[in-house]
Amino acid sequence: MISSEMQAKPLILITNDDGITASGLRALIEVVRPLGRIVIVAPDKPQSGTSHSVTMHHPLRLKKIRSESGYVEYSSNGTPADCIKLAYKIILKRKPDLLISGINHGSNSSINIIYSGTMAAVFEGAMAGVPSIGFSLLEFGTDADFSAAKLYAGRIIREVMSKKLPEGICLNVNIPYVPASDIKGIRICRQAGGTWLEDFDIRKDPKGEAYYWLKGVFARIGDGEDTDEYALEHKYVSIVPVNFDFTDYPAINELKQWNFSS
Amino acid sequence: MISSEMQAKPLILITNDDGITASGLRALIEVVRPLGRIVIVAPDKPQSGTSHSVTMHHPLRLKKIRSESGYVEYSSNGTPADCIKLAYKIILKRKPDLLISGINHGSNSSINIIYSGTMAAVFEGAMAGVPSIGFSLLEFGTDADFSAAKLYAGRIIREVMSKKLPEGICLNVNIPYVPASDIKGIRICRQAGGTWLEDFDIRKDPKGEAYYWLKGVFARIGDGEDTDEYALEHKYVSIVPVNFDFTDYPAINELKQWNFSS
Repeated sequence: MISSEMQAKPLILITNDDGITASGLRALIEVVRPLGRIVIVAPDKPQSGTSHSVTMHHPLRLKKIRSESGYVEYSSNGTPADCIKLAYKIILKRKPDLLISGINHGSNSSINIIYSGTMAAVFEGAMAGVPSIGFSLLEFGTDADFSAAKLYAGRIIREVMSKKLPEGICLNVNIPYVPASDIKGIRICRQAGGTWLEDFDIRKDPKGEAYYWLKGVFARIGDGEDTDEYALEHKYVSIVPVNFDFTDYPAINELKQWNFSS
Repeated sequence: MISSEMQAKPLILITNDDGITASGLRALIEVVRPLGRIVIVAPDKPQSGTSHSVTMHHPLRLKKIRSESGYVEYSSNGTPADCIKLAYKIILKRKPDLLISGINHGSNSSINIIYSGTMAAVFEGAMAGVPSIGFSLLEFGTDADFSAAKLYAGRIIREVMSKKLPEGICLNVNIPYVPASDIKGIRICRQAGGTWLEDFDIRKDPKGEAYYWLKGVFARIGDGEDTDEYALEHKYVSIVPVNFDFTDYPAINELKQWNFSS
């Protein structure tokens, strides 16, 4: 029997893009364990770099599993965005009170947000009016130490739960990979300019046919002290409030002067 | 032998997300045939809804084909964003002078931009400093009539080639599905608010296991006369200038008042 106290607890939906077994997801579950009712719906395999992809060309599957967390968890063959849609419509039958995604193994600062499955799930939350936060640690290793990330994720989640995020706004949180004692605090930032200096590793398969692996190095563009990249370099946790209106408003007036009639 | 006149012609890169055989892509090739040197690099199968996904978990392939267009074309097993990266590094060995994506079979207005592979390729262009435009026709049919879309795509491409897009800005162009004579003109717009009222079609496979197909109906939110949805409903071609800085600047000051220390 569910007590009225249980029912009053906020419903927290957790996902990620590294897959349901990732230690970053496990860390995030521990952070919110005392804060509400928890439902986990995550991809059954790594989905890094899937951005806001949704599955349209093959059917989705959903598997109910019971894990060491003590919670019923669901894994899906879909993307993080698919997982959120499945959670709303198939599992929860309603919108959750909070959506958290991560903790991602690797940075989603600067332009990385556009490729991020972690942040796509967060946008999917914000688009449905759900307070939503994505967390990323600046370390790719599968056995990364999430202890500092957990501390700061907890502080940010508690503040978001006690306040109200502006409508249509979600948070992109990145955490430097240093001990908690070395983190200087939290900074509210804008998204830094940046680019990937990319190339392809060209290989031949046993039949002699070429195949390509994308590789690259991130390069920051510009040096504003108000950016997420600057904050992270200086050992601050960065929070960038983001929205899903891609319009460039200043450009509207400029383009209105153009002549498209010929 | 390549004449100096040929070399002086602008290099135009074409892609899409409906796949290299789509009639919308063929229509776009015809539009720019007189305007420059053309290279086509497109997915080998439909990639609608892949957003800004990049391929990281299996290797990319690239196939050189000669098609009825008279141009050498390349198809890839990757996403539209992958195609652009492959074009820059493997095929062209330099950035093109113009990138065009489409003509998409179906709308990319309002919030649809976030799911769009067509527009991901366009963002990939803008992120590299290449003038980039995505075109979408408000008709999903594979045998849609692209004649009005071609007319307006040509006008917009010529104007972009004669002017200079502001740095970091690319264009999301949507075209109503009506005869050219019924189109009232071109409007510069902001991205309309909108949402997908979604559900899943739940089916059972022969083993009795459930699988899910996403389905939904788009619903506009708000009624501003300056939006792309409003323009399209009133038979205007919509152009939304978009950028890839997702920061919500007004929210920065609000969040700076919050207290994340506890």
